[in-house]
Parts: sequence; structure tokens; C-alpha cells
Amino acid sequence: MLFSRISRIRRAGSNGCRWFLSQKPHLQFLNPPAYSYSSTHKEQNDPFSLVADELSIVANRLRSMVVTEVPKLASAAEYFFKMGVEGKRFRPTVLLLMATAMNISLLEPSLRGPGDALTKELRARQQRIAEITEMIHVASLLHDDVLDDADTRRGIGSLNFVMGNKLAVLAGDFLLSRACVALASLKNTEVVSLLAKVVEHLVTGETMQMTTTREQRCSMEYYMQKTYYKTASLISNSCKAIALLGGQTAEVAMLAYEYGKNLGLAYQLMDDVLDFTGTSASLGKGSLSDIRHGIITAPILFAMEEFPQLHEVVDRGFEDPANVDLALDYLGKSRGIQRARELAKKHANIAAEAIDSLPESNDEDVRKSRRALLDLTERVITRTK
Amino acid sequence: MLFSRISRIRRAGSNGCRWFLSQKPHLQFLNPPAYSYSSTHKEQNDPFSLVADELSIVANRLRSMVVTEVPKLASAAEYFFKMGVEGKRFRPTVLLLMATAMNISLLEPSLRGPGDALTKELRARQQRIAEITEMIHVASLLHDDVLDDADTRRGIGSLNFVMGNKLAVLAGDFLLSRACVALASLKNTEVVSLLAKVVEHLVTGETMQMTTTREQRCSMEYYMQKTYYKTASLISNSCKAIALLGGQTAEVAMLAYEYGKNLGLAYQLMDDVLDFTGTSASLGKGSLSDIRHGIITAPILFAMEEFPQLHEVVDRGFEDPANVDLALDYLGKSRGIQRARELAKKHANIAAEAIDSLPESNDEDVRKSRRALLDLTERVITRTK
Repeated sequence: MLFSRISRIRRAGSNGCRWFLSQKPHLQFLNPPAYSYSSTHKEQNDPFSLVADELSIVANRLRSMVVTEVPKLASAAEYFFKMGVEGKRFRPTVLLLMATAMNISLLEPSLRGPGDALTKELRARQQRIAEITEMIHVASLLHDDVLDDADTRRGIGSLNFVMGNKLAVLAGDFLLSRACVALASLKNTEVVSLLAKVVEHLVTGETMQMTTTREQRCSMEYYMQKTYYKTASLISNSCKAIALLGGQTAEVAMLAYEYGKNLGLAYQLMDDVLDFTGTSASLGKGSLSDIRHGIITAPILFAMEEFPQLHEVVDRGFEDPANVDLALDYLGKSRGIQRARELAKKHANIAAEAIDSLPESNDEDVRKSRRALLDLTERVITRTK
Repeated sequence: MLFSRISRIRRAGSNGCRWFLSQKPHLQFLNPPAYSYSSTHKEQNDPFSLVADELSIVANRLRSMVVTEVPKLASAAEYFFKMGVEGKRFRPTVLLLMATAMNISLLEPSLRGPGDALTKELRARQQRIAEITEMIHVASLLHDDVLDDADTRRGIGSLNFVMGNKLAVLAGDFLLSRACVALASLKNTEVVSLLAKVVEHLVTGETMQMTTTREQRCSMEYYMQKTYYKTASLISNSCKAIALLGGQTAEVAMLAYEYGKNLGLAYQLMDDVLDFTGTSASLGKGSLSDIRHGIITAPILFAMEEFPQLHEVVDRGFEDPANVDLALDYLGKSRGIQRARELAKKHANIAAEAIDSLPESNDEDVRKSRRALLDLTERVITRTK
């Protein structure tokens, strides 16, 4: 039986965001991990090079999926899919690794039967999820940059800066519609529904950030909910979509979802830390862009628990740089940065445990992909940029 | 056999937009119309009052479909669904009438069997198409108003004017995502694909209008293609979706599509005429908003065929009001308004013929709905606002 060795996911302890962790599903598995996250896996293949060839296929297909006969719309839509400005491709990497990590037909070669063409077909469908996810992600970047009046992105001018707000809004809409057409072509309405919900989450998260009240701004619960919507929903639900297309059970699909969700949360928490520390790991060396835009993130929220006086500083806003310095003073005296890192680590661990809880496999490709997914949970919390 | 009396759709003659009419599908039906459009049907029920109760159901459900926990997003999303600012509800009216006009289970009561619940279920699904269509329509209005920097809509402040561009962009995205979730719930991937394609068309049409070259601005072909994308695609494809959900044949679905497409084109052509004439039917009494925004529509395109000198005027642009007056002079001397009206009439007739070509029915509800759909083809070309 494939599910003979499903490990128990350990409950994370109390850490100031009880609400969010309590959202963890009813995963009650009984056995120890098939293998545990350890230092040995670090010597294994790099996650990105493991799927490099497939990432090229996905990148090429993305470029062909956004072709349109209206020249300006075509330039706008392909802007962030052009060679060299495709970003870190974190999401497609995770999704392709997840596809292999769960691939039952790879797990049991004897079950393949005449289905090798089926295996290829399934892989193409899972690649399509990676493509759709990138389209939704880029569409949200285009609209976010319009909302924030941003002038750069991925080291080049933002689309709104280069082609104007109008084309950036239209190109975002266009990518969403193409994503929806591609989704429909998968002929799986649960998957359509899952990813449509993600678009709603992206919008909800962005609006939550834009329209916080005084209380919400100081609430860890609100912050974690917003972070889930803005960052973790896309990767978690697309991981789940990969599982659903693969015909996995609801339990395995939930493990895929948990991996994506917790990896996404860990990623964002570290992003928030790095905004204060930058690569130097010392306070105030980051870009400080969140706080300067009045966005309160985990480090400050934790610092507030130690120094309630910080509330007043936050209430005054951060247009005055002296106020930013004052907040940094409090943050420096507090355990805010440390606790945010710890929370990131906790979520990275939960993500790793989800991988450990997948049905056992002796297939070398499957094991390699799982090691790479574990490797990503470490990279996310040790990264310096 | 239900399809024993499918009538022939007459080909429209040459009228300066051959390209577009040549796109008409392979509709080769053999028999005369089951009944023809005549003055007698005018005495029948008003199309809008025929579906008034159902329109209220749709309106209520729309309000409940856009509910969200984030207060600002909720106000923004429901803005144009509130009582009194729901617009003419032209699309849901057409779609509900079309649903009855094609309802096979109504055509043949003997076929209903134990399926009365099924009939209700189908009707609810068809109503959902009307709701989704309205959501897509309003989403496109919200984004268009941001692009055009419009300050009013439906007699009240535009959403961007009242709540700012950011919330208007986000509310548009939100409505699209909710429309997509609702679409997925219908569990019919052909319908998902059809309406996702419409969103792409709306974006494409808007971009075509925004980025015309000198030649394109003077091309009737380009104008008709843009008009299809911006106006006719939504109503035609949602009419087709109503047919597909009803389990109709590809031929009947195509008739529904043809009705929607040609009604939409007729509507827009008359809109273009009214922009010049207003209610008074005399030139220059309309709002002249198209030409003042540099948008060249059918009346001017026809006038150009008679007076090639008009090209130069168009090339100079319309920032100078004297140039607008000059264009109006040429238009007044030409048959531009008249030919645009004739073209609208031609498309209205094709729409009416599509209804005449539907499988014969003796059911009074079906016949009433068909008469109402025919009535709309007349209202569209005789309307003065």
C-alpha cells in the first residue's frame, strides 16, 4: 500500500500567530517520516538545475501562449516572459519538482502498463499548471506595479513606467484571460475553481494591505492572513492542482498544499526580515521599503509585543524619517527580527514535514525531487537576497 | 423532428465591411422561417417586463455573489450592482429570453418526464450565465473608466472617481475572479473557455482602439473587428453558452451566437450614429464624444469613401474644435449617417433571421420569448438614446 508510511506532521507551538497555525488541516498521520530532512541531502542536486530543461520548455511555451495580433498588447504581455527577465522562476521550479515528487506512475513502474503516453500527457498538463501560475503571478505584478506606481521590476523598468498605466492594466487583464483559457483547456473544473480562487486571494490580500485600520495594522493575525492571500495562496493552490491532475488522494493533495503554503509563508517572513537587514544581517541595512511605505510586517509586530510604546510610533506613520529611526531603535532592542526568523523556520519545517509525509517511494527520481523540495525549505530561510 | 423547419439565413450584401460579414459561419438552412418578423409582434409583451421577475432574482444574486469580508473591496465590487444603478440590464434580458426561446424541455412537455427539477436546475444554470456576463461586463467598465479617466457612469460618479484608480483596478480583477469561480461551478469547460475568450476579446478591442495606426483608423475592417471584440463578443458568446448549457446542437448554438453578435453590432453602430445626432436626429446634436476623443466610427468611415479629403482632417486629429466642425461638414454632405444606419439595420435583420431559423415550436412561452427577441432587434435600431 502506497500510504503505509505516512509520517506525522508535528504541530507548531504558540508563536504569536496562533490563528494561522490553527488553520492547519486535520492531518493526523501515524508513522515516522519516510526519511528526514538532514544535512546529507544538501549534497544532492540543486533544485533549479534538476528541472532546468523543463523550465526552458515552460518559458518557451509561456512566450508562445501570450502571442496576440495587436502589436502593443503583444509587447506588453510578453514583457516579463522575455529571456533574461523571467525572474527566479521559483514557482515553476517548485511545481515541476512537486509533480515528480508525487508521480505515482514513476513510483510504480509496473503500473505504467501501456500508459507511457499517458505519463507524458500528465506531465504536459502539470507543466501547464506551472505556466498558468506564472501568468497569474505576472498579471498580479503588472497590476501591483500600477497600484504602487513602481518604476522598476526585475532590474528593468516596470511595464507601467515603460508603456504606461493603461497598457499595464490591459496586459494584466489579458494574461488573466489567457490563464483562464489555458485552465479551461485542462478540463478539470476543480482546478479551474482552485486557481480562480487564487486570483481573488491576490486581490483580497492587496486590498487588505491598502485599507488597513489602526487595529488591523498592529494585528499579527491580520498580517498572516494578508500574507497567505498575497504570497502563499498561489503556490499552495497550484501545488494542490498538480496533485489533483495527478489523480492523487485528497490527503496527498493536502500535503502538497501544506508544503506550498508553508514554504510561501516562510519565504515572505524572510522577505520581511531582509527588508530590515539586507545581506549584511545587521539592522537598517535593508531597503526599508515596507516601513517607509507604512507597511507593518512581522519583525515590528513582534517588537510591539515587547515594547507597547511602539504602537504610538506606528500610529504616527512613517513619512517622517525620524519616526523610521525610532521604530528601528525599538526593533534593535527587541527580539523582533529573531522571532520573525524563528517563525519563518517553523513554517519551513512544516513544509519539510509535508514532504516527509508523502507516500514512501524507492524511485530515485522521486527521491531526488523530494530532496530538492526539502532543500528549498532550507534555502528559503538561509537566503540573503 | 425538432429541426424540421430551419430557415435559411439570407446573406447580407456588400456594404463596405465585406470582411466582417464574410466571417458569418456555414449556416446553410433550407426551409422558410417558422414565422417572420412582422409588425404584429410589436403588440406582444415588452421584452424587459417579460423577464422582470427573473431579472430581480439575477440582480439579488449578483449582490450576494460579490460579497467579501474586506469592507472597501466589498463596497467597490457592489458599486454598480446596487439597486437603481444596475444599468439597462440589456444583456441579462437577452440571455433569459434566449434561454426560454431555445428551451427544448418547454418545447416538448411530454419529454419532461420526471425532469421538472432538471428543468429548474437548467434554468438556474442559465441564470448564472446572465450573472457571469454582467460581472464580466461591469469588470470591463471599471477598468475602461480607469483607462479613460472617466468621472461618471450610469448617472453617478465612476468608481475610479469615487474610490480611486487603485480600488477600481482591484474591484475589476475581483469581479473577474468571482466570474471565473462561478463559471467553474457550472462544470462545463467549453463554457469556461468561451467566456474566458470574451475577456481576452474585451482587452483586445480596447487595446486596438487605444493603439490604432493611421491606416487602421481609416479602415472599416479594423473598426468592425474592434467593435466585435469590444461590444458583440460578450453577448454573442454568452448567448452561445446559454445554448450549450441547454444541450442544444452546434447548429442551434451557432444561431444563438449569430443573434447575439449581430444584435451587438447593430447596437454599437446605432450608438455611433447617436453620438453624432443625439435624440434630435440632426447632425452635431449628439455628445460628439467619440470624435472628440479621436475615435473614428462608422459614419465618418462611410463619409470618407465619398470624400477622400476627410482623410487629411482625420490625420490632423480632433484636439482643435475647428477640425471637429470640418469633419461634421463633410459628414453632413455625405451619406455617412444613413449608411451607418443601414448597416445597423442589416445586422439587426441577420439577428432576427437567426431567431426565425430556430427549430419550430408551438409552445406559447417559447414563441413569446422569440417575439421579444425579435422586438429587441427593432428597438436597437429605432432607439434614440
